[in-house]
Amino acid sequence: MVLAEVPEPTIREDEVLIRVRRAGVCGTDLHIYQWDDWARGRVKPPIIVGHEFAGDVVRVGRFVTDVREGDRVTAEGHIVDGRCLLCRTGNSHVCPYTKIIGVDRDGCFADYIAMPATNVWHLDAQTSYEIGGIHDPMGNAFHTALTAEIPGAFVLVTGCGPIGLFAIGICKAAGAARVIASDTNDTRLALARRMGADEAVHPDQVEGAVRTATDNLGVDVVLEMSGVPSAVKQALALVRVGGRVQMLGIPSRPIDINFATEIIFKGLTIYGVVGRRMYDTWILMSRFLRAGHFDPTPVITHRLPLEAVDEAMRLITSGEAGKVVFEIA
Amino acid sequence: MVLAEVPEPTIREDEVLIRVRRAGVCGTDLHIYQWDDWARGRVKPPIIVGHEFAGDVVRVGRFVTDVREGDRVTAEGHIVDGRCLLCRTGNSHVCPYTKIIGVDRDGCFADYIAMPATNVWHLDAQTSYEIGGIHDPMGNAFHTALTAEIPGAFVLVTGCGPIGLFAIGICKAAGAARVIASDTNDTRLALARRMGADEAVHPDQVEGAVRTATDNLGVDVVLEMSGVPSAVKQALALVRVGGRVQMLGIPSRPIDINFATEIIFKGLTIYGVVGRRMYDTWILMSRFLRAGHFDPTPVITHRLPLEAVDEAMRLITSGEAGKVVFEIA
Amino acid sequence: MVLAEVPEPTIREDEVLIRVRRAGVCGTDLHIYQWDDWARGRVKPPIIVGHEFAGDVVRVGRFVTDVREGDRVTAEGHIVDGRCLLCRTGNSHVCPYTKIIGVDRDGCFADYIAMPATNVWHLDAQTSYEIGGIHDPMGNAFHTALTAEIPGAFVLVTGCGPIGLFAIGICKAAGAARVIASDTNDTRLALARRMGADEAVHPDQVEGAVRTATDNLGVDVVLEMSGVPSAVKQALALVRVGGRVQMLGIPSRPIDINFATEIIFKGLTIYGVVGRRMYDTWILMSRFLRAGHFDPTPVITHRLPLEAVDEAMRLITSGEAGKVVFEIA
Amino acid sequence: MVLAEVPEPTIREDEVLIRVRRAGVCGTDLHIYQWDDWARGRVKPPIIVGHEFAGDVVRVGRFVTDVREGDRVTAEGHIVDGRCLLCRTGNSHVCPYTKIIGVDRDGCFADYIAMPATNVWHLDAQTSYEIGGIHDPMGNAFHTALTAEIPGAFVLVTGCGPIGLFAIGICKAAGAARVIASDTNDTRLALARRMGADEAVHPDQVEGAVRTATDNLGVDVVLEMSGVPSAVKQALALVRVGGRVQMLGIPSRPIDINFATEIIFKGLTIYGVVGRRMYDTWILMSRFLRAGHFDPTPVITHRLPLEAVDEAMRLITSGEAGKVVFEIA
Repeated sequence: MVLAEVPEPTIREDEVLIRVRRAGVCGTDLHIYQWDDWARGRVKPPIIVGHEFAGDVVRVGRFVTDVREGDRVTAEGHIVDGRCLLCRTGNSHVCPYTKIIGVDRDGCFADYIAMPATNVWHLDAQTSYEIGGIHDPMGNAFHTALTAEIPGAFVLVTGCGPIGLFAIGICKAAGAARVIASDTNDTRLALARRMGADEAVHPDQVEGAVRTATDNLGVDVVLEMSGVPSAVKQALALVRVGGRVQMLGIPSRPIDINFATEIIFKGLTIYGVVGRRMYDTWILMSRFLRAGHFDPTPVITHRLPLEAVDEAMRLITSGEAGKVVFEIA
Repeated sequence: MVLAEVPEPTIREDEVLIRVRRAGVCGTDLHIYQWDDWARGRVKPPIIVGHEFAGDVVRVGRFVTDVREGDRVTAEGHIVDGRCLLCRTGNSHVCPYTKIIGVDRDGCFADYIAMPATNVWHLDAQTSYEIGGIHDPMGNAFHTALTAEIPGAFVLVTGCGPIGLFAIGICKAAGAARVIASDTNDTRLALARRMGADEAVHPDQVEGAVRTATDNLGVDVVLEMSGVPSAVKQALALVRVGGRVQMLGIPSRPIDINFATEIIFKGLTIYGVVGRRMYDTWILMSRFLRAGHFDPTPVITHRLPLEAVDEAMRLITSGEAGKVVFEIA
Repeated sequence: MVLAEVPEPTIREDEVLIRVRRAGVCGTDLHIYQWDDWARGRVKPPIIVGHEFAGDVVRVGRFVTDVREGDRVTAEGHIVDGRCLLCRTGNSHVCPYTKIIGVDRDGCFADYIAMPATNVWHLDAQTSYEIGGIHDPMGNAFHTALTAEIPGAFVLVTGCGPIGLFAIGICKAAGAARVIASDTNDTRLALARRMGADEAVHPDQVEGAVRTATDNLGVDVVLEMSGVPSAVKQALALVRVGGRVQMLGIPSRPIDINFATEIIFKGLTIYGVVGRRMYDTWILMSRFLRAGHFDPTPVITHRLPLEAVDEAMRLITSGEAGKVVFEIA
Repeated sequence: MVLAEVPEPTIREDEVLIRVRRAGVCGTDLHIYQWDDWARGRVKPPIIVGHEFAGDVVRVGRFVTDVREGDRVTAEGHIVDGRCLLCRTGNSHVCPYTKIIGVDRDGCFADYIAMPATNVWHLDAQTSYEIGGIHDPMGNAFHTALTAEIPGAFVLVTGCGPIGLFAIGICKAAGAARVIASDTNDTRLALARRMGADEAVHPDQVEGAVRTATDNLGVDVVLEMSGVPSAVKQALALVRVGGRVQMLGIPSRPIDINFATEIIFKGLTIYGVVGRRMYDTWILMSRFLRAGHFDPTPVITHRLPLEAVDEAMRLITSGEAGKVVFEIA
């Protein structure tokens, strides 16, 4: 991954050109940086990486009606086909023809990015570029949390990376009875408490915390945000019978599952979370932010220039960081 | 309605006897007090009125296993048959064979009440008799609010009687984007603000408030808590297309409805609220209270001895009171 | 309403031109024909009426990618804005900016119609133009029926006009336990039986039929397809406690509703049906037709040339007809 | 497992004594017969095995009001506590305190069985003892099928044992667009076709069948009825993005799952099926049977006397049998 001079992107007639101001760094970017198996199979370089951003519209294609030069915006980074069965039934988030910016086409770790106007999302006057720049992962957290029944629920969040941290704040704002969070990292546990977790504990203490809080029954909902195999196992073990496990964290290797005892006999519902519902999730997110229901700012722990890409990747690898944001312009 | 000496109730083998400490006064009690058409058709005097209460268990039938002498309790006042299609599918709240305490059998405006053990609900140590004594109407509010999608929703609450006031607090705790409340009475509007309403306005200002807050689209959810025909009309007018109207307030006379324009062309969903879901609602209510999600205390504006029944009824009729509670022992 | 020579429609770059083969006649067309209050308030003549049709694509705009000359098609007649809150959350059927062909812009009682490509729906090889020409009202029936829980349900269909008749066949194919249909017209009752109704009775016999079939409890679901005030009353009276009333029929005048006894104390859910869900309903409809789950053909009772518009309107007014279809080319 | 003389069961005051007429043999009985690890850990002999049956009530406890001597009945074999959080919210099927007849207390491979009156289910006059004797596994099939959206769905049923075969008939009756069934055994595939499967194929042909039927998208719903690891893998592979997998088959060993590619990136919902919903499932089942929606009789391939228990177990092990039923009296 190198910083290089490239031509300014051209835009199609239904696209807009955006001057990037802030861009969030994501685990997906790290996979590409490390050029692992997934990256090698999916990404076709040379490509501009990065899919979380906010900025200003500087040019609009001639078919574009809803976006204007000067608009402060972020964008949904999943570009869908709009006419498959999924798109036509309100389920674009799992469109099989999705192209992701920064993965399948040029992304946002750059001065400019071209985006289809359909995917642009306007920012309120009171929403900073910085917060706009993390709408994509916040959206993941909203999708994960609010497709479960949160008001009055006992919730376990396994994994306190940025998306887990956002989800803690969302669950508290939505009336969860109690939010227990787990992580191996003390810095992240401290951020979890700051985001409102009633308890934030190491994985070896989470079973005790859940049992005490729920009279041994288990939590109603688990948000699995880590992708760590032992956390997935805990998620299945600590959710109550008839409960719901929302899976967002991406395990890097297969996990041995005893379907009989871990899923079927417990009558569980398991839901795999892909991106953000388009655009239910975005509407909910905007409303929570505008209402001041929670403040994602504490999750942003590092702000770096684009030149510091190696440092950004090191921070994410370390597990010490919350959200790392590039300040571009 | 008179205060009289009556024999202590006898209990069946599956019932318990409860020493009443606090009892809430409800509009239903007022109907009986006024002996209106509904009361004359339904109630068979002599009967002890009252259906909201909390107290101590002082005797238990010999088949009772889950309740013990000395337990601090309240109770679900709808006694259902437990074996009809509705009861057998988790919908006891609409059991057609329901008997209501204080209406169909002796109620709680008395020193003692007999209750089936199945209907008893234990109070946490930190829940006072007073709060226990208003679980029934709070439960109505929980049922009304939380069978809609509240997190992120624009909500209009028409009617700021006690149940409307509780609902305001519940919606705020469950992450409503904005709660607008309406009533004709300034005392109640002040209580609405105290319970967390973002706006509390007179009915003639509510359309403007809704339009401003929702870019003219209308609210996602209306909780109709008044039963006033003009408020029902406003509920249908100010909910957005595709929205949801939860109806709890009981209109005393028929209302002319233009189904075409008021319901069908708007694609609305309308839900009639009966009592409390048994016992989903009670579990949610206990969890909200234990988590400290909202404090119903401000709604209780008057505390009276049982001897002051006429004063209690006058207060309720006046529209000046929030919740009126009898302090019995 | 007159038959006249008009210029062939021009199409925009995102539209297609369709040679109309068959076109269904709807009650909406009758309202315009009669030039009643609703028509006068909504329709701006001169306009080509008609919104149900099938035909062949004869020209495509240059931005159109999914439709080709020669395609056999029908179309969704509600043209929505695609960018409002409703459209962006999978609820285009209630888009407040909907334009309806034959009402707000030129329709299909003509040799040619221009349609946005997004609204075109391809017909399978085995689907005739005639069946294609009634997809719009069949879609209303699918929307009404399949947004309730039909498998195993006792269903009452009040009103056996074309949409009610379609709904009977759909409910039977979807595993309704029993379908009771009501109408005042014997021809329509005979059609109801032919579409699979277990009982088809006059309104004065429907209460008895429901009571006998459901042990006095009432049906789980009513599909109100008539718009007749007395049928709306029966719908509310004969649905069981906790049941669901799907309202599609458009009452022409306000109805006095006792919300207390007719809706709230019964714990009902009422759903107002607008058009077809876009495009969930269309997908379900195509699948039912391709699977041979039901045959809508018996509902089509009259086939007329476009010149016979007065006769078509007379037939619809009479209540004797099922579906009337224009054979155009 | 031996046939022995034992005393007639005594009943409690809330129980009834039932003369067993027919009893179904289940894979669970085979586990106990084979005395495998699960059986050794759970079952405390001596115990009467068997949990599927129908018969006549011959004695009723004095607290029993809804069941009478002479009633023709079957029963829900899961005896739940009735007062835990799950039971109190309409989710008794996952009550953590469930006792199962034939596993945790005496079962029905006997002349008589004692059952709590709450669990007794009356048979219609037209329902034979034989069909009554297989209500338990039919109920599993109803629960599995009808907690998914079946009308109009493409459905894959992996595994054509008795419950899979029942499910095929249920899905067809409920309007599935197409039911594809898979099994390794030709006898079972023939039964699958007889129950209405549109296609019944070997596992190595199922991918092709699904791709052809669904334009490569995958089925909307999989009912996983086999518990075979390779079938579970196929279930996850052949369900479409955003689809639903209902898991009833019990894998006997852990399965390696790549959560990223098999569940999360596909946005799946997975639901573990436990027993029957109490009593939603029973009501649906009774209604389907009474309506004649499907005939489970072909699934019953062998009828044996109780003395032939070894033969019964051999038949089940062989994979050649559909349902095996004991004819007891």
